[in-house]
Amino acid sequence: MRLRFLTFVLGLCTLPALAQTPDQLYTATPQQLAITKVVLAQESAWNKGDLDGYIAHFKDAPDTLAILAGPVRGLNNIRGAFHLNFPNRDSMGTLENSEVEVRALGENFGLATGKYRLARPRKSGGAVEGTFTEILEKTPAGWQVIFSETT
Amino acid sequence: MRLRFLTFVLGLCTLPALAQTPDQLYTATPQQLAITKVVLAQESAWNKGDLDGYIAHFKDAPDTLAILAGPVRGLNNIRGAFHLNFPNRDSMGTLENSEVEVRALGENFGLATGKYRLARPRKSGGAVEGTFTEILEKTPAGWQVIFSETT
Repeated sequence: MRLRFLTFVLGLCTLPALAQTPDQLYTATPQQLAITKVVLAQESAWNKGDLDGYIAHFKDAPDTLAILAGPVRGLNNIRGAFHLNFPNRDSMGTLENSEVEVRALGENFGLATGKYRLARPRKSGGAVEGTFTEILEKTPAGWQVIFSETT
Repeated sequence: MRLRFLTFVLGLCTLPALAQTPDQLYTATPQQLAITKVVLAQESAWNKGDLDGYIAHFKDAPDTLAILAGPVRGLNNIRGAFHLNFPNRDSMGTLENSEVEVRALGENFGLATGKYRLARPRKSGGAVEGTFTEILEKTPAGWQVIFSETT
């Protein structure tokens, strides 16, 4: 896991830069790293089958918003919707994020985007892949997800 | 258009509040109103068949990101992808946004979400509906879209 983390962060730091200036490496900011850690922690919780651990990274606020089949607001509703969509371990499958990029939206907010692939047996819904989008807010409890969407 | 704008903003101001406190009306902030105007201007341009006018609300920066079939970065690439997806007036159909909500992400960024419905003839792709997500940044040129996605 440690190795994977380092690889991941390295990819984050260099890929967007390489697209424009091959000779230069950019350094991820502390803000980008902190947000990346949340994305990684969510992926890790998911792959342990710990759906509540995944959801625990959302901010407990009425305007926290997740787009599932439609917009779902507030932590309790979001928790309910995720458990409805992923009722057991098999339905959660194995999540793999890639091409993760984080950009600051001012000091206290950040946008994380990337591709995801959910591998799972056909009888549990089959594989799904697409892009994910999360907006995180710097709160007294750390960086928390206030918006989540996949396409 | 003026009447529609007022109706729209009223809906924006009251709907989220009504869900929680029926007796109280909240007032949209200048930031929320400014962002709402951009969303409305994009809808208006779209419905005139003015795809470049729609895209003109995006910030001209390499990290401006639109999720279409996949992630597309930078204004020129975004313009190209939109023109590929919507090659003529019929393919653009008629766009109607609803349940639009705007929240601040600090002073210089904001999140606009809502539902959209694209009405168009079957031969031009048929009707599409879902949710839209835009992140806007306050720039010297006004509020501009830096992230756009539909589901």
